[in-house]
Amino acid sequence: MSTQLTPEILSTLEKQSIEVPSWAYGNSGTRFKVFGTPGTPRDPFEKIADAAEVNRLTGLAPAVALHIPWDLVDDFSKLRAHAEDLGVQLGTVNSNTFQDDDYKFGALTHEDAAIRRKAIDHHLQCVDVMDETGSRDLKIWLAEGSNYPGQADMRGRQDRLQESLQEIYARLSDDQRLVLEYKFFEPAFYHTDVPDWGTSYAQVASLGEKAMVCLDTGHHAPGTNIEFIVMQLLRLGKLGSFDFNSRFYADDDLIVGAADPFQLFRILVEVVRGDGLNNPDVSFMLDQCHNVEEKIPGQIRSVLNVQEMTARALLLDRDALGAAQRSGDVLGANAIMMDAFYTDVRPALAEWRESRGLPADPMAAYAASGYQAKINADRVGGAQASWGA
Amino acid sequence: MSTQLTPEILSTLEKQSIEVPSWAYGNSGTRFKVFGTPGTPRDPFEKIADAAEVNRLTGLAPAVALHIPWDLVDDFSKLRAHAEDLGVQLGTVNSNTFQDDDYKFGALTHEDAAIRRKAIDHHLQCVDVMDETGSRDLKIWLAEGSNYPGQADMRGRQDRLQESLQEIYARLSDDQRLVLEYKFFEPAFYHTDVPDWGTSYAQVASLGEKAMVCLDTGHHAPGTNIEFIVMQLLRLGKLGSFDFNSRFYADDDLIVGAADPFQLFRILVEVVRGDGLNNPDVSFMLDQCHNVEEKIPGQIRSVLNVQEMTARALLLDRDALGAAQRSGDVLGANAIMMDAFYTDVRPALAEWRESRGLPADPMAAYAASGYQAKINADRVGGAQASWGA
Amino acid sequence: MSTQLTPEILSTLEKQSIEVPSWAYGNSGTRFKVFGTPGTPRDPFEKIADAAEVNRLTGLAPAVALHIPWDLVDDFSKLRAHAEDLGVQLGTVNSNTFQDDDYKFGALTHEDAAIRRKAIDHHLQCVDVMDETGSRDLKIWLAEGSNYPGQADMRGRQDRLQESLQEIYARLSDDQRLVLEYKFFEPAFYHTDVPDWGTSYAQVASLGEKAMVCLDTGHHAPGTNIEFIVMQLLRLGKLGSFDFNSRFYADDDLIVGAADPFQLFRILVEVVRGDGLNNPDVSFMLDQCHNVEEKIPGQIRSVLNVQEMTARALLLDRDALGAAQRSGDVLGANAIMMDAFYTDVRPALAEWRESRGLPADPMAAYAASGYQAKINADRVGGAQASWGA
Amino acid sequence: MSTQLTPEILSTLEKQSIEVPSWAYGNSGTRFKVFGTPGTPRDPFEKIADAAEVNRLTGLAPAVALHIPWDLVDDFSKLRAHAEDLGVQLGTVNSNTFQDDDYKFGALTHEDAAIRRKAIDHHLQCVDVMDETGSRDLKIWLAEGSNYPGQADMRGRQDRLQESLQEIYARLSDDQRLVLEYKFFEPAFYHTDVPDWGTSYAQVASLGEKAMVCLDTGHHAPGTNIEFIVMQLLRLGKLGSFDFNSRFYADDDLIVGAADPFQLFRILVEVVRGDGLNNPDVSFMLDQCHNVEEKIPGQIRSVLNVQEMTARALLLDRDALGAAQRSGDVLGANAIMMDAFYTDVRPALAEWRESRGLPADPMAAYAASGYQAKINADRVGGAQASWGA
Repeated sequence: MSTQLTPEILSTLEKQSIEVPSWAYGNSGTRFKVFGTPGTPRDPFEKIADAAEVNRLTGLAPAVALHIPWDLVDDFSKLRAHAEDLGVQLGTVNSNTFQDDDYKFGALTHEDAAIRRKAIDHHLQCVDVMDETGSRDLKIWLAEGSNYPGQADMRGRQDRLQESLQEIYARLSDDQRLVLEYKFFEPAFYHTDVPDWGTSYAQVASLGEKAMVCLDTGHHAPGTNIEFIVMQLLRLGKLGSFDFNSRFYADDDLIVGAADPFQLFRILVEVVRGDGLNNPDVSFMLDQCHNVEEKIPGQIRSVLNVQEMTARALLLDRDALGAAQRSGDVLGANAIMMDAFYTDVRPALAEWRESRGLPADPMAAYAASGYQAKINADRVGGAQASWGA
Repeated sequence: MSTQLTPEILSTLEKQSIEVPSWAYGNSGTRFKVFGTPGTPRDPFEKIADAAEVNRLTGLAPAVALHIPWDLVDDFSKLRAHAEDLGVQLGTVNSNTFQDDDYKFGALTHEDAAIRRKAIDHHLQCVDVMDETGSRDLKIWLAEGSNYPGQADMRGRQDRLQESLQEIYARLSDDQRLVLEYKFFEPAFYHTDVPDWGTSYAQVASLGEKAMVCLDTGHHAPGTNIEFIVMQLLRLGKLGSFDFNSRFYADDDLIVGAADPFQLFRILVEVVRGDGLNNPDVSFMLDQCHNVEEKIPGQIRSVLNVQEMTARALLLDRDALGAAQRSGDVLGANAIMMDAFYTDVRPALAEWRESRGLPADPMAAYAASGYQAKINADRVGGAQASWGA
Repeated sequence: MSTQLTPEILSTLEKQSIEVPSWAYGNSGTRFKVFGTPGTPRDPFEKIADAAEVNRLTGLAPAVALHIPWDLVDDFSKLRAHAEDLGVQLGTVNSNTFQDDDYKFGALTHEDAAIRRKAIDHHLQCVDVMDETGSRDLKIWLAEGSNYPGQADMRGRQDRLQESLQEIYARLSDDQRLVLEYKFFEPAFYHTDVPDWGTSYAQVASLGEKAMVCLDTGHHAPGTNIEFIVMQLLRLGKLGSFDFNSRFYADDDLIVGAADPFQLFRILVEVVRGDGLNNPDVSFMLDQCHNVEEKIPGQIRSVLNVQEMTARALLLDRDALGAAQRSGDVLGANAIMMDAFYTDVRPALAEWRESRGLPADPMAAYAASGYQAKINADRVGGAQASWGA
Repeated sequence: MSTQLTPEILSTLEKQSIEVPSWAYGNSGTRFKVFGTPGTPRDPFEKIADAAEVNRLTGLAPAVALHIPWDLVDDFSKLRAHAEDLGVQLGTVNSNTFQDDDYKFGALTHEDAAIRRKAIDHHLQCVDVMDETGSRDLKIWLAEGSNYPGQADMRGRQDRLQESLQEIYARLSDDQRLVLEYKFFEPAFYHTDVPDWGTSYAQVASLGEKAMVCLDTGHHAPGTNIEFIVMQLLRLGKLGSFDFNSRFYADDDLIVGAADPFQLFRILVEVVRGDGLNNPDVSFMLDQCHNVEEKIPGQIRSVLNVQEMTARALLLDRDALGAAQRSGDVLGANAIMMDAFYTDVRPALAEWRESRGLPADPMAAYAASGYQAKINADRVGGAQASWGA
């Protein structure tokens, strides 16, 4: 085996796990069109089967994030057993306050106490689910905001958000957490109630130690230095989780690493720098939409991208880098970064995978597995799961 | 009546007309949710009735743009008569190559000749419709592109696009035109086949004099100086039409003038400067989504916004401005612009409307008209029209 | 007098004061060229004379921000007396860590303790100046960062920044404050040590109650909702000051209100909403560059823009707005905002100015005053002050 | 030698040449500070010596772009002989219309015919220089524009620009060309007279076949798909030259490939796709600022970055890619792209360099050469060349 990846690096990589979202296996699209695909899951059990296939071939994805109500089942112990039978666990529970007519003008921030009540209750129900699934994290992505200046009292909403979150936070058990996602814009186009890391940080800091920030790599203004935010949140002890994906323009939700691989590298360098790798406080998750590409291979490609880039980040010669930084050697320091980035870790990783009983090339192994043909044939009839169902 | 708006200005305003899109009266939304609303039209006839109401109250919207296949009817002569009975005309015909499964990887640009054939035929059918409706313009918004680097051969697609457009162009009668819209991104997230005015211009310039560019005010990169493009296209004789709307982030499709009124002012100043106002070569249209606000009042507000801002643009003292520009008086020139912008033309316009038998306040007149209550009551059962139907 | 501006509004406006920066009167430019202009001040005394002229004509600018070392004088009591003779005060003291060769790779964040020492000492000297000038605020704009990935250890710099700030903070007297400015980018192009409000907030929150955030309206990513940040910082009690200017692209430092007047309106609406107006905790300052326009009239125009927009913000019918917001009346709420924005307050303000013994039109009054001709004639010889001197 | 780089690829790489700009060897900076460095050239002869060093160590940079008036010398035949003695040629001549007080409000676009005359004459003088230096290309970067809406008549300026360019174009000999650069913004902040490729294209298309577009990779709006423009200009036969550099935010002028290496790869893939590589019609040039890093090594790093990325682009399996594209295999096509990008070509290139008598590691060879120490010692006294001198 190549000596490029040291035993220490490999041992670190071995511990890496990336949570995959159940909804990535359903159909998704843009406001203009959602394309259907053969073999798409029709229920949470089928979604988890697909996720388990990703894990089987990569060893990287041992947990599946759920979305409530999309993944509501009558008996979560059954779903949990199904997952465990397939070698995966139920992971983060995501709430949904953006698909109910009541939430047109807000949920946790709504002017109307009755609608806030409903939204809070939905989150309490999510914690109930977590109790059953054994999930640790409640992830809240707040789609709330307004489209027109004047439409909403941004200040009042911020205060109501804090109140609502406090009630949800109080419901958590000692080993559960709340992670609050921020997003620059969409679906609201004038203001978003949690638009940036600063707002998420200020909100969770007021809640307590079990509240953390979720950083979605696609949720920033153009040009934002995301690795800086990673650094800062790790420094402040408030980086709870990553939602990985990539983007060229807005929240494109493309495969992680597809749009700007060097940015992913820099993010992972800061994760390593700040002890965020294999740190139980920091969940690695995907949050993507496979609008035009195949979904299961799309997820396999994604977890491999994270693994490969983590390997490159681990290759970084931090001692040499520190020396170059201290001496003001701009080109030298940059060269050390680029050397790690440009190193082709793929052959060594393939070898290492094989040594662990995994396919050297998980993409090829999936293509050869017959799994897709089987689900295409089996999953006929019923409604395909999709973004929003 | 205020002497602020001179007879010359009022006479210019009197000729202004803004085409409204049939789809603005249906439901629309984001990829996350489409909210339904009472009274939403269920067919093209009802959409046109709503559009006619906008025209009745404002005198500004005498034509309705259609979208094929959303507005396909068995007998367009009936739809035309229905419109004319209500005092409006059928306007620009919009094609649709983004909602058919075949078009997942392109339409007019597709690698597969059979799918290109289908897409071209769709456009030829649109021209058939134009022959029946008496519409002059075929508007093509090309939603085509790719999500991942390598997915598509951008160069080959550009050549195929030109070929496809040539066949469509050849079908036009002497008094018909093709207008090609450009858009920065969405629904494709890596590359879009007509992403900028330069591409649209190069494509239509190769077609001939009846091919023009459509400028949608929401389809540019952040920071783009849109009035510069307006100026340039007017200078090149290739500005065929406007799709008006406004945006804070991406293609938000908010009410025109809502996000940056000063930008709308500057655009209209260049329209006046370049003789684009009341110029038959330059259509004024709306293209908006009323996701959270009421649709008919949203359209009334929109045409009024365009009218008010046109009035401000007409107030601009162009002689004084020219003198300040020639003398390098930066603050003086800017002050002349700002003076026109900051002038409150609303009272004078209200008075003038009344003098012409229109409501002084069309928004209030609509609220008082009972129209909304009537359609809420009448339009029960059936499927509401929406973005995509 | 128009009844549009109520006595209450006028009384509020009467208390408004906007601090002007001494450097706005010197030459400035881009990296490509700094144009010189006749009459440009050659020393701090002349800058203050110009600033006093702005105040004399507008009654709006009773304080002048200083920049150290640009405005270092042998005897600050003399400068103070000079200012007071002219009816203005010495205001915020700005430090400078971006024009010394030692600071090429950082100042308060530098790897080298000796250079940090020098930078801290510079700030302590600034506080000495504050003691002499009677200034309350030490404003720190940190131009530090890096141009290439790997060049700098962002995390270590963040920690060192906190340490450095703590030492500076400790030097403040009870009635002095430290305000920390953030900036998206420039002069560093890869990372900036205080790039966003969240970082500034986290840094000052660790210092204590006398440390606040400075919001420069030109220092954000494209598309950022700045009024949201204003709202949030007021809510968190940490908005210490504004640096007003405007921009189309980057940190263009144009005249406040020139690029997007509606944005300035929305910012001021949130200031009023959050009790930030005439609140001693929140300083209003300008920070602009008059690269191509005349400087003194540029400053007059700027303070008038702030005043006019404040008047519009005060016109907002907040009760009606609240009612519309509570009832989900999107168009109604937006219309109330737009009504205040579109109201032409200029004639009423002119009348009111005159009633207070100020010129109705300060721009015209300046042009007629002969001041410019006088300084053009007098200020011959010597080196013109400029950005950087 | 690795078989990765085939003889065909190596033969293509052998022909590659990248023109370096004389000004990259002088000092540069931001509006806030220009840092001086030891060894900086004091005249055009010393700049060319430095450029020749880059070529000596890389074999990639056989031509040096000049900037007039920065590089004016009494006798260009002497400069030409000096260059040829050092193994390089004098290349593209750049005009300068941004550093003269007369040009504050425009040059080729100015309202005043006398100033346009002066600016045109400057360009005619540049062609005189070209005659002496044997340069083929006159490159025009038009820094003209305005800072405030209303300040300038954009339409009139566009027409005057065309007139001015026609006169300059008429002066060219048969084997000379004019390349017109476009830039999104800076130094003007409201409008720029040639802000986008469409404007440059429309302007040069009106001139004739010897007029082409120059694409500077740092001169676009955020999010612009630059490789699309490369494709389009090659398709239209109007891509005259590249100004390579990289950016995170604005026109940062960082080392090419430093900010987004994958973007550089995609650009070079389109260059190869469109037969733009080693095509005499398409010049490859650098245009960068080494504000904080060493200049000569910065240039060496830059030409190596272009060479390495060109090698990756040449590795792309275009047949396999075409097949995947035609079959709608999104992930497969993308994987073929990524495979070429992630291949580590550096060892093979080092070997190949050595085989040609060049240093395997030109950066190390420069460090070991003693050249920097020599120029640091020799170049004492005199004024260092800088951006602007």
